[in-house]
Amino acid sequence: MSVYSTTWRVQYYETDKMGIVHHSNYVRYFETARTEYLRDSGLAYDEMEKAGIWMPVLSVNVEFRTPAVYDEVIRIKCWISRLKGASLEVQYEVSNYETGEVHATGSSSHAFTNPELKPIRVKKEAPEVYRVFAESKEDDDE
Amino acid sequence: MSVYSTTWRVQYYETDKMGIVHHSNYVRYFETARTEYLRDSGLAYDEMEKAGIWMPVLSVNVEFRTPAVYDEVIRIKCWISRLKGASLEVQYEVSNYETGEVHATGSSSHAFTNPELKPIRVKKEAPEVYRVFAESKEDDDE
Amino acid sequence: MSVYSTTWRVQYYETDKMGIVHHSNYVRYFETARTEYLRDSGLAYDEMEKAGIWMPVLSVNVEFRTPAVYDEVIRIKCWISRLKGASLEVQYEVSNYETGEVHATGSSSHAFTNPELKPIRVKKEAPEVYRVFAESKEDDDE
Amino acid sequence: MSVYSTTWRVQYYETDKMGIVHHSNYVRYFETARTEYLRDSGLAYDEMEKAGIWMPVLSVNVEFRTPAVYDEVIRIKCWISRLKGASLEVQYEVSNYETGEVHATGSSSHAFTNPELKPIRVKKEAPEVYRVFAESKEDDDE
Repeated sequence: MSVYSTTWRVQYYETDKMGIVHHSNYVRYFETARTEYLRDSGLAYDEMEKAGIWMPVLSVNVEFRTPAVYDEVIRIKCWISRLKGASLEVQYEVSNYETGEVHATGSSSHAFTNPELKPIRVKKEAPEVYRVFAESKEDDDE
Repeated sequence: MSVYSTTWRVQYYETDKMGIVHHSNYVRYFETARTEYLRDSGLAYDEMEKAGIWMPVLSVNVEFRTPAVYDEVIRIKCWISRLKGASLEVQYEVSNYETGEVHATGSSSHAFTNPELKPIRVKKEAPEVYRVFAESKEDDDE
Repeated sequence: MSVYSTTWRVQYYETDKMGIVHHSNYVRYFETARTEYLRDSGLAYDEMEKAGIWMPVLSVNVEFRTPAVYDEVIRIKCWISRLKGASLEVQYEVSNYETGEVHATGSSSHAFTNPELKPIRVKKEAPEVYRVFAESKEDDDE
Repeated sequence: MSVYSTTWRVQYYETDKMGIVHHSNYVRYFETARTEYLRDSGLAYDEMEKAGIWMPVLSVNVEFRTPAVYDEVIRIKCWISRLKGASLEVQYEVSNYETGEVHATGSSSHAFTNPELKPIRVKKEAPEVYRVFAESKEDDDE
């Protein structure tokens, strides 16, 4: 398993009147880490889309522990926890960059589809994409 | 159990380059339904906050089934599925208003806290608030 | 000149840590009013896009007067202040629905383009679209 | 005049169904550059707020030239174009980081206020804050 890590500065528009980051933004932080991980692995999501491989989100869940606040630098870690021929699960941890205090954890699952959102067997139809995921996944349960 | 239902017109800025509603917005749709449900129950979230009762989100999860698209009118249903002395779980269903096609389902759990985000026993400390939730909850497991 | 008016309930996620609506959301409120005005005029933006007529934003400006707050119902008025063969200017006013207090005013200008973002002379190439705008515009300066 | 420059990677959730960055996000890009500029000048906005000096937005305007797209790295420049005792004007330019192609230009004006949004004469009441702005402004017209 290889863990990818990126950082993000909390923006003013991400806060809400409670004075903390609005919870919906964590779903966006997850996406930021996931797409940067893909780019770092040589799979820019932009180019995957151009090649006809889409990865729509099937589910997402977030557990909130402590609030992140304006101007804070956060670290977003992600790693592939499950890889199947037509789907993928990614896990996440959002924490304070300096103290390591964990703000949230979560996961998302994704299908591999064509641009019409029909599932594709990425292992067969785009083995070079599958290989990149397989190389960094935690365990191969198929 | 009483189910609350509200409607929403999908906005242009809620779409993404896939041409569908960006998945993070469902977490916002859930919040919209939840706060309208509260207002409808006589518990405007604004006034709860002024009374010193906050309901931060402890967790949220969304299962995506079919994409919602720009300009579509969606229905967001929510209902209380669990009520404890210091926490609450709400379930959701987002569907097309006309056809009933389900776009997503999900849930969120919430703590009752004071403005310093310290848990409070709402049943004891704000029984009139607790009563409103208790009256519409699915089952009382405490 | 015909003025179109729609309402909107301020959402929690639209607030920021200042406790008021984040200023960027007014640009979204303008869009909401503009697209509802179009739909009301028989020009659902969705169908215009399918017909190959896009209306990208050329400029937008907002003057902020008083803050809108969470849970407030606002009124967003818009009207066409200028119509040319290949462009359009819309003006806006955002106010409290009950008191009429003005929160912001502003304007946006738009080109008519094809899906490749090339300008089109809507008056010639889509006269039925032009006519709708012309009928509700303030003055025709072409 | 000193020009501050920061970079930003366009996020998937910032795109819309036109396939480009939704125009409302430029107002957020401006804020990002403005607050990073402040931090870089030794005036973290967070700390200014704690010190009781707020800078609400009085007006904002954006001129759009060419669309920015997903995954693109953009450069956001900003500089102070006007400084008065109780207000400030900032100008912006958003461009492609590599090619320099300009996507948008714009400006925002701000009041200096206390947390109750009452104007304060920052030159008198917080001269150390005023000095930082004065040192990097284009011209002092007061």
